This record gives sequence, C-alpha cells and structure tokens, in this order.
Amino acid sequence: MGASVQQSFIWLPAGLLPLPLPLPLPLPPPLLLKGSMTFHKGPSQRSPPPPGYPPARQLKRWPVTWQSVKPEPPGKFVIQVFKDFQQPFTGRYPTSHRIYSMPVPQEPLRRVAVTGGTHGNEMCGVYLARHWLQAPGELQQPSFSAVPVLANPAAAAVCRRHIGCDLNRSFTKALLTASPTPDEPYEVTRARELNQLLGPKNSSQAFDFVLDLHNTTANMNTCFIVNETDLFAMHLCHRLQLQNSESPSWILVYQPPESETFSLDSVSKHGMTIEIGPQPQGVLQAKLFYRMRSLVASTLDLIELFNQGTAFPAFEMEIYRLLEYMEFPRTEEGDLAGMVHPQIQDQDFKPLQPGTPIFQMFSGKDVLYEGDSTVYPVFINEAAYYEKNIAFMKTEKLTVSVPALPVLTPSPAH
Amino acid sequence: MGASVQQSFIWLPAGLLPLPLPLPLPLPPPLLLKGSMTFHKGPSQRSPPPPGYPPARQLKRWPVTWQSVKPEPPGKFVIQVFKDFQQPFTGRYPTSHRIYSMPVPQEPLRRVAVTGGTHGNEMCGVYLARHWLQAPGELQQPSFSAVPVLANPAAAAVCRRHIGCDLNRSFTKALLTASPTPDEPYEVTRARELNQLLGPKNSSQAFDFVLDLHNTTANMNTCFIVNETDLFAMHLCHRLQLQNSESPSWILVYQPPESETFSLDSVSKHGMTIEIGPQPQGVLQAKLFYRMRSLVASTLDLIELFNQGTAFPAFEMEIYRLLEYMEFPRTEEGDLAGMVHPQIQDQDFKPLQPGTPIFQMFSGKDVLYEGDSTVYPVFINEAAYYEKNIAFMKTEKLTVSVPALPVLTPSPAH
Repeated sequence: MGASVQQSFIWLPAGLLPLPLPLPLPLPPPLLLKGSMTFHKGPSQRSPPPPGYPPARQLKRWPVTWQSVKPEPPGKFVIQVFKDFQQPFTGRYPTSHRIYSMPVPQEPLRRVAVTGGTHGNEMCGVYLARHWLQAPGELQQPSFSAVPVLANPAAAAVCRRHIGCDLNRSFTKALLTASPTPDEPYEVTRARELNQLLGPKNSSQAFDFVLDLHNTTANMNTCFIVNETDLFAMHLCHRLQLQNSESPSWILVYQPPESETFSLDSVSKHGMTIEIGPQPQGVLQAKLFYRMRSLVASTLDLIELFNQGTAFPAFEMEIYRLLEYMEFPRTEEGDLAGMVHPQIQDQDFKPLQPGTPIFQMFSGKDVLYEGDSTVYPVFINEAAYYEKNIAFMKTEKLTVSVPALPVLTPSPAH
Repeated sequence: MGASVQQSFIWLPAGLLPLPLPLPLPLPPPLLLKGSMTFHKGPSQRSPPPPGYPPARQLKRWPVTWQSVKPEPPGKFVIQVFKDFQQPFTGRYPTSHRIYSMPVPQEPLRRVAVTGGTHGNEMCGVYLARHWLQAPGELQQPSFSAVPVLANPAAAAVCRRHIGCDLNRSFTKALLTASPTPDEPYEVTRARELNQLLGPKNSSQAFDFVLDLHNTTANMNTCFIVNETDLFAMHLCHRLQLQNSESPSWILVYQPPESETFSLDSVSKHGMTIEIGPQPQGVLQAKLFYRMRSLVASTLDLIELFNQGTAFPAFEMEIYRLLEYMEFPRTEEGDLAGMVHPQIQDQDFKPLQPGTPIFQMFSGKDVLYEGDSTVYPVFINEAAYYEKNIAFMKTEKLTVSVPALPVLTPSPAH
C-alpha cells in the first residue's frame, strides 16, 4: 500500500443511460469500472465481510469490478457492486456498496444560500451570517443573489454547538418527515424549518446550492467537504483549490456514498461545506474570518461563471475519503485513558504509517497505529467529537477523474 | 513611558511593625515607599480621579509617596496612599489604593491541594485531577501529600466552563457567608463546599497552599497568576520560571491589591494559578497536559524544599500587573462590530504601542490603540471572556524586588 491509493472513479451524469434499464445490464466496455475496495475493522466498518469469511481486521484490499447498474429515483443511478475475491478467496459476493451520480445542473443556479452558525460556537459562520443579514449586498451576483441564513440562532445565542442535538445530522428523511412533538430537540424543529426554507430535500423546489460554513479546532486549514457524487460541487472545490494554491486546502468526502445524507447542505440540489481551522470554539479569529469571507465570494463568483456559460472542463484531483473513526482509548469504566499523541496532533491530512504512535496514555504508555496501510487522519482532536468518542477520522487519499460540466448558454442578468 | 515601567515594591512581612500602630504613622526613612500611580480611562478604572480633576482619560502617571500605614486584620498591613500631585496639579488626596502584605509561612506547609476543572472545559486540569484521584501517589512528598480536587465536577461532566456562574469568581465573603437558597447557582453552593474543604478562607484552619490549574485559548504559553502580596507564591513563580527557562513563562498579577479576592486559590493561606495555552475549550492536548503535570511536580518539589529548610533568598523579577480590560467594539444595538486585529492575535505579553491596530471592524476599518503609553495585552481573544465582553486585558510590566523567605528548621518526614 503506497502513500496514495490510486483508484479510478467515473461519474455518470443523469441522462447518460436510458431509463428504464433492464436488470441486470452489462455495461458497455468503455464504462466498465474497475477499482478496489477495503474491508475495515472496528465498530464503524462500512463493508462487513460475508458470513464465513475472516474477521474484518484480517481482511485486505480486494480488486473489484462494478458489473451492473440499476436506476434509483430521484434522478440517481446506483451501481451495484460485485466483488471478485481473487485472493486469497475466490467467489462472488454482492454488497450494498453503491456509487451514486447526482444530476448536473442544466440551468443557471439562481437560488443559492450561504448558511453559517449551523453549529452555534463556530464563530466565523455565525458572524459572517449576522454580518450579511445586515449587509446582504456582498452576496449579490449579476445572475443571482445568495441568501444569508443563520442556521442555528438559538445555539449561536448561547455560543454552543447545539441546544438539543446536532443540527448538521438532522436532515434525514425520518426526522424531516416525522410529526412534530412538544419535547423534540430544538434542532429537529429547526431542521424542518430550514427544509421548508431551502428544500424540501430531494424536491424540484429545493434551492440550487447551499454553502454551509464551519470551523474546527483541528489543524485542517481550509477543507472543502463535498459529496463525491455531486459533480458540480466537485468542480467548485477544484477551482477554489487552484485559486488558493498559496495556502493548503483539502477536499474531504465525509459521507459514504451508500448512506443517507444528513447534513444541512443536503437539502438543496447541490451543496458543500467550507471547514476552516484551527479555531477554538467560541473564538473569532480575524484571519480565518477573512479567509472564509473570501472563499464564499470566490464560490459565488464561480457559480456566476457557470451561469454565464463558462466551460468547466474535465480534470483529475486528489480527494480524501472517510474510511472510519478512530475512537479514544478508554478505561473499563469508560473514562478517557489517554489522549491524542503529540506526534499526530495538528498533522491532519498527513500520511499516518502503521507503527506510528497515535495515543499517549495517562500511564505514559504509547499506543501505536496498528492498521495495515497508510491512512490520512483528519479532524484530529476536534473538540466537538469528544462527545461522539472520535479521536480522529481515518481517510484514504484518492485521485479521481471528474468529467466536464455541460456548458450553459449565456444567462441574462437576474 | 518606556517599554518597561520601573516601579519599586516592598513587602512588609507580618510582625515587622508593632501592633497597634498610631495613625497616622510616618514610616521610618528606610521604609518610605516611592513609586507612581496611573489613572485609567474607561468603565473599569480602578482609581477614579478626585472630584473637580480632569476626566480619567486625560490623566497621566503621577509620582506617589506612600506615607503611612495602618494595620488591618487578619494579619495584613494596609499602606494608605497619599498622592502628591506634583504636576500639573499640586495637592494631597487620599485614595483607596493599598498594598497588602500577607504573612509568610513560619512553619512547613503540610496541607496542600491541587485543584483542576475549576472551569469544566479547561481540560488539562480536569484530566489531571481525575488522573490523580485514581493515582494520588504522584502528589506525595516526604513532608506532605497534596490532595487532588476536581473543583467543578458538574461543569466538567458536561464540558462547560460553568453551570450557573463562574466558580472562580465565587469565593467572596458575601457568597461564602450567604444563607443557601434553593435557586442559587450550582457554583455558589460548590464554592461553599470547597471553602469547607480547603478553607475556611482567612482562617487558621485553611489549607496552607492551593495550586489551581487552568487553560486559556489565548497564546499565554505558561503563565503563573499570583497575588503580588503573597511572598511565598512569588518565590515559587520565580523558581518555576528559572527552572523552565527554555520555554517562555510569565507572571501575571490579576487582582488589584485593594480589591477583595474571589478566586479558588484565595481560600487557602497561600496559592497560585497555573494558566497554560493556547488550548481550545473541550480539547486535551498532550504537550500541554505534560507541561502542566511537570509544573505541578516542580511546585510540590519547591514546597518540599522550603519545608526542609532550604533558603529562598531575595530576588528581583518582572511581573505583569493588570491595568484594565479592553472591551470589544459593539454596534449601537450591542452586537459585536469587529474582532481582535490579526496584528495582535497571539501577541500576549508583547508590548502594544499607541497607534497599533487592535480591532478589525466587520466594515473593514481598523481601530488603533489610543492609550498614551506602552501596555502588555494578555488573555487576547480568550473564548471565555466574550461573555464578559473582554477582548483582552492590558497590563503593565514591572520589576519588583522580593525579599527572602524565612528559613525553616529542617522538618521531619510527614
């Protein structure tokens, strides 16, 4: 396993294949997808091994061939994966791992929102949203005006991440469609309000784009969190990365493609999150505030360019895709037994080799990383993740090929 | 006004002057104290100008002669200050500014406590206290065993600074002696419990020493917060500073000598606070954890040295003494109108010259420091002080002369 796991992805823009598709449909040779998959150990493993196979932690990376596709509403394609176990086992096993392709925009994006304070103690977004609510002119473009939204005003008022539960995990179908109850957490109610304002999620009435602003206490510098099936957002990230090449920035795919989306930016047709750090919770640092303000302006400029018919050609880029969480070491009673090792503190997005110390126990003992391949930890020692028992998140570095966007015909001014 | 304001202080150990003293008593020439005082502008000014004198912000630093002393229980001396206004006014005006001298220990210190988690989201102290409660052996010395205390367990359990109010401002006579009420803040109740455990404050039954452990989000590195009239604690700070000369450390006098003490370490006969940063609230960083653990061990070693009869000779050292708070810029509606300027972010304890930008407004405008002398800002952009509307605290740098401690006769093992 090298430092960079090379893996090919191809997005299938909506409309590329005729609907309905017969099942199973062998793909034409140019679209036959090959790659590899990994089984991961631990409680958050996303691909449990088939019955009778070795325990997850003993499994390796396997070659994989995606062999058929089937359509899934609304407007998404699901690629059903069959794994060919070539070594040390042979056989065929269908899994739930799927690759979605979200539709690419065929029209100018006119309904755009910039949301801050989704977590009420991440101060750049809180104060940018408050500022723009007073002075929205900064968010105007010739073809659209972005709407500023203070996403979690109650949490921002008391400078806490949340009042009752994490708003940015509350945009699931179950929560958005449940009947309101008097004792439900504030954020569940607020998620429904935001879904009315910016969605409804998965509907044609939803906003075209939501840009959600976050801070982290981890040394993530500038990080764009994106759904890797959102071709439009992938283009924005890539261009933002090129425009800001003097300062390191990273593209993080946080959510497994097969799982239901839950974040605020999932209520709109397209969306992404800007995550800037390190900044302590409850602190507003001017440098980070201005960096975020500038990135929002650049994002809106790029949407305007797209609306005006600018070509967004195909490219390749590096992304970091979430593999699994690394939990804190605990005593038998469940108390913290150690802390993130100084050797990996602030080393977000740097390669973590097997055998590197990752925890320092209060007893003085070091705990080494026991994985069998290089990973790239992110959100290292993030304050908000102590309550989730996450010391850091392991990602893999991938190079992905992203196809061109369709070129719109020039749009008249809004 | 130079970068360092030279000012002389002399501590008057208890028992130096006979009690009772006639009033007014001219001091004998060797003890005549000379120095200077400053009037400060703004709402937190500690020395309001006399009636009919110019407004505070126009006043300058004046020469001062302390001319008489009077005793004040328990075991403290109060030096009454008369200001000689030599320019531009002449006259004599008694103020409330006083210099205390706390008694120096005449016996070994055997009742010592190390308190952490006084603020429940300052994680080094929280986890050190929890660790020592499981493994108290680390706090044992030949002549005493320090007691670990998790000061605010309810706030630590939910990882907040406090539940109801700031515990570290709750050790006042009014709060400690008030009758308990059912709806009083948790921390007021807890302060009384701690006063029972470690005090009672100002009594002969009180603990000999309390070492209180804190973190800050400001770039304060290692900072010892001490009452400048506590000669014993001043000696400890000085030695700790010498022992850790490879890393910058600072001595901060936070509380005006004329004001009532309110912090946890004021319940004991002697005490001090170790403040380490920058560390975000709710995050435990191993390097800071180990630095604090090592400083606690060194402090206990020094107390042991004193107990064993080691001489602590006189010395001079630099201290930073709190002048006043600098508030955040606000709109007419009271909202934050700007933030700490990047030019002073992380510049704690560095000289701040008049004319230096201190705030960057959301409008883009810079706000300059308008003082008439160099000051030394501390607690710059501390998360916990937003609710107190403090952007940073201005201090002055002073060189103080600290007399020797009495040498104890060697103590038998405890």
